[in-house]
Amino acid sequence: MEYREAAELLLRQNDILILTHKRPDGDTIGCAVGLCLALRAQGRTAWLLPNEDATRLFTPYLEGCLAPEDFRPAFVVSVDIAGKGLFTPAGEQWLQKGIDLAIDHHPSQEYFAKETCLDAGRAACGELVYDIVRQWGPVSREVALPLYVAVSTDTGCFQYSNTSPDTHRVAAALMETGIDAQWVNKRHFRTKSLKRLKLEALIVDTMDLHDDGAIAIAAVSLDDMARLEADEADAEDIAAFVGQLEGVRTSVTIRELEGGSCKLSVRTDETLSATGVCALLGGGGHAAAAGCTITGSVEDAKAAILSAIRQVQGHA
Amino acid sequence: MEYREAAELLLRQNDILILTHKRPDGDTIGCAVGLCLALRAQGRTAWLLPNEDATRLFTPYLEGCLAPEDFRPAFVVSVDIAGKGLFTPAGEQWLQKGIDLAIDHHPSQEYFAKETCLDAGRAACGELVYDIVRQWGPVSREVALPLYVAVSTDTGCFQYSNTSPDTHRVAAALMETGIDAQWVNKRHFRTKSLKRLKLEALIVDTMDLHDDGAIAIAAVSLDDMARLEADEADAEDIAAFVGQLEGVRTSVTIRELEGGSCKLSVRTDETLSATGVCALLGGGGHAAAAGCTITGSVEDAKAAILSAIRQVQGHA
Repeated sequence: MEYREAAELLLRQNDILILTHKRPDGDTIGCAVGLCLALRAQGRTAWLLPNEDATRLFTPYLEGCLAPEDFRPAFVVSVDIAGKGLFTPAGEQWLQKGIDLAIDHHPSQEYFAKETCLDAGRAACGELVYDIVRQWGPVSREVALPLYVAVSTDTGCFQYSNTSPDTHRVAAALMETGIDAQWVNKRHFRTKSLKRLKLEALIVDTMDLHDDGAIAIAAVSLDDMARLEADEADAEDIAAFVGQLEGVRTSVTIRELEGGSCKLSVRTDETLSATGVCALLGGGGHAAAAGCTITGSVEDAKAAILSAIRQVQGHA
Repeated sequence: MEYREAAELLLRQNDILILTHKRPDGDTIGCAVGLCLALRAQGRTAWLLPNEDATRLFTPYLEGCLAPEDFRPAFVVSVDIAGKGLFTPAGEQWLQKGIDLAIDHHPSQEYFAKETCLDAGRAACGELVYDIVRQWGPVSREVALPLYVAVSTDTGCFQYSNTSPDTHRVAAALMETGIDAQWVNKRHFRTKSLKRLKLEALIVDTMDLHDDGAIAIAAVSLDDMARLEADEADAEDIAAFVGQLEGVRTSVTIRELEGGSCKLSVRTDETLSATGVCALLGGGGHAAAAGCTITGSVEDAKAAILSAIRQVQGHA
C-alpha cells in the first residue's frame, strides 16, 4: 500500500492504537508520537500502547500519548516493526488479534498485518510517516518534533550511509515548522553520561591493538560495569565507539555476560567479512557488522575471535 | 552584491586566484576547491593560493588545485574570510594589492574587498558558493563533494544551531549529484586518533566536578600532551568534549601554555554568562563561549576560574 492510500485508510478510522517495537529507538517512538498527534489534530482518538522497554531518553516525547488501561481500540497500527519477533509482550496480544496496518521501512518486513505500507528506500520510518501525515494538511510543530527525532536518530544525525537526499529534504521541511532541532540534536547526539564517558575511557586504556592498529579488540567485563555502576543504557552501541579509532579496519567489542560467557560484536570494512568471522564461532550478521556468543572468559573470547579473524584473513 | 551578480562577475573573469583563511577549516577549504573546480568546468583558469596552515585532514581535497609559483592571477577572490586579520602571510600580499571579490557568511565581515557577496543567514559559506556555482549549470559530483565538506563541517554535520532548512536543502542537492557523503562523514565526524581518544580518557579521569556536576573543570598540562605525544590537531575543539557531559551547565577547559600561563575556554548555558566570567580575568567572547589567559599553574587557573564563576553566580 502506498503512503497516500495509508493516509486515506487511517483517516477513515477512529480509536486508533499505535504499537512500537521491542527495545524502542528514536525512529519507532518518534513515528508513533508523530502519527498519534497528527491523528488527534484530525479529530481522531489515538493512543500509543505503553512500551515497557522505553528508556528515559524518550520519556519526554511520550507524555500525554500513552493509552489508558481502559482504551478499547478499533484500529491497530504498528510503526517501524519489521517482524513478529519484534513486538513487546503487551504488543503480542494485539498481534494475535490482528494488526490492521503496518507502516515500515525494513526490507525484512514480514507482512504480519492486514495492510502494509512499506518503503524500504527510506532511511527512517519517520520519513514515511511524514509523507503520510502531510496528506492531511500542513504539519504542525508538535507533529514535526517527534518525526525529526525519528529521522535524525535513525541516521546518526545524517551521518550513516542510509542518509539520502530525501532524508535531508524531510529534515528541511520538519525544521521549517519551527521545531527546536538544536534541542533534539544536543539531547541525542551531544550528551553523554559520566558513566558512559568513564566506560569509553576504560576501553581506550585497556583495548588491544593488533596489526599496527588495524585490529582493535576492546572488552568490558561484568566487574568493569559494576565498578562504574554502569547500566545497559550507558553501554549502548559501544561497538561504534571502538570503530571510530583512526586506522582501525576490524573492531571487536566483547561484553562479559552472567554465567560464564561473552557476547562479541564485530565491525569490519570491505577487507574482511564480519559475518564470515562470526560464523566460525556460531554467530552471524551482515558483511560489515556481525556478532556471536562465546562460552568462556573475556581472555578466552579475545583469543577465539583473533583466531577466527586470522582464519578468515588466511582464506582471503 | 547578490549571489547571482557574483556568479556573473566571476564568469567575466579569467586567471582567478582563490584565497582561504588562516588556520583553514572545512568551510573555507571546501568553498575554495568547489569554486575552483566549477570555474575550471567553465573553461576558466583557477587556482588556490597554497595555505601553509592546512592540516592533513584537508590535504586530499586540495590535490591539483594549488597554484604554481609562477601563476599570475588577474582576479583574486577570498572565500569565508571575515576580516583582514584572517589572511595567511601569503594571502596578506594579495590583500595589499587588493581583493576583487569576497564571498562570505560572517556577520562580522569587514568589507575589505572591492566587491562583497555576503549572506550572513547562511550556516556555511559553502551554501552560498553552491548558490553561485549552480548559476552556471548543473553542479558536478567533483564540485559537490568539497561543497558538502564545507556545509557539513561548518554545522557539525547538521547538529549545530546554525543549521537551517536551507542547509538541509543544499545537502540534499549536493548528495543528488552522487557524491560519497558517507566517506566524508566517516572522515570528519566518525574518526578519532588514538592520541585524541587517550586525551579524552585523561580528561574524564582527571576533571573536577562541582555543584553536583553542573560545573566541570578539565585541564590538559604540557606534561600530559608530551606524555601522550599529542599535538594541536589532537587537542582541537577539546572544550566541546567536556561540554557534552550530561548535567553540565558550565564547562571549563584549561590548556597549560609554555612560559607559565594557561589558556582557558569557558562554555555555559543560559544560566551563566561565559563572557562575564572571562571578563573578570581579562578575557572575553560570547554569552555561551568565552576565553581568557591566566598567568600561573594549572592549579592557579582552576582556583581563579572557579572564583570568577562564583562571583558572577553571586551577582546573578
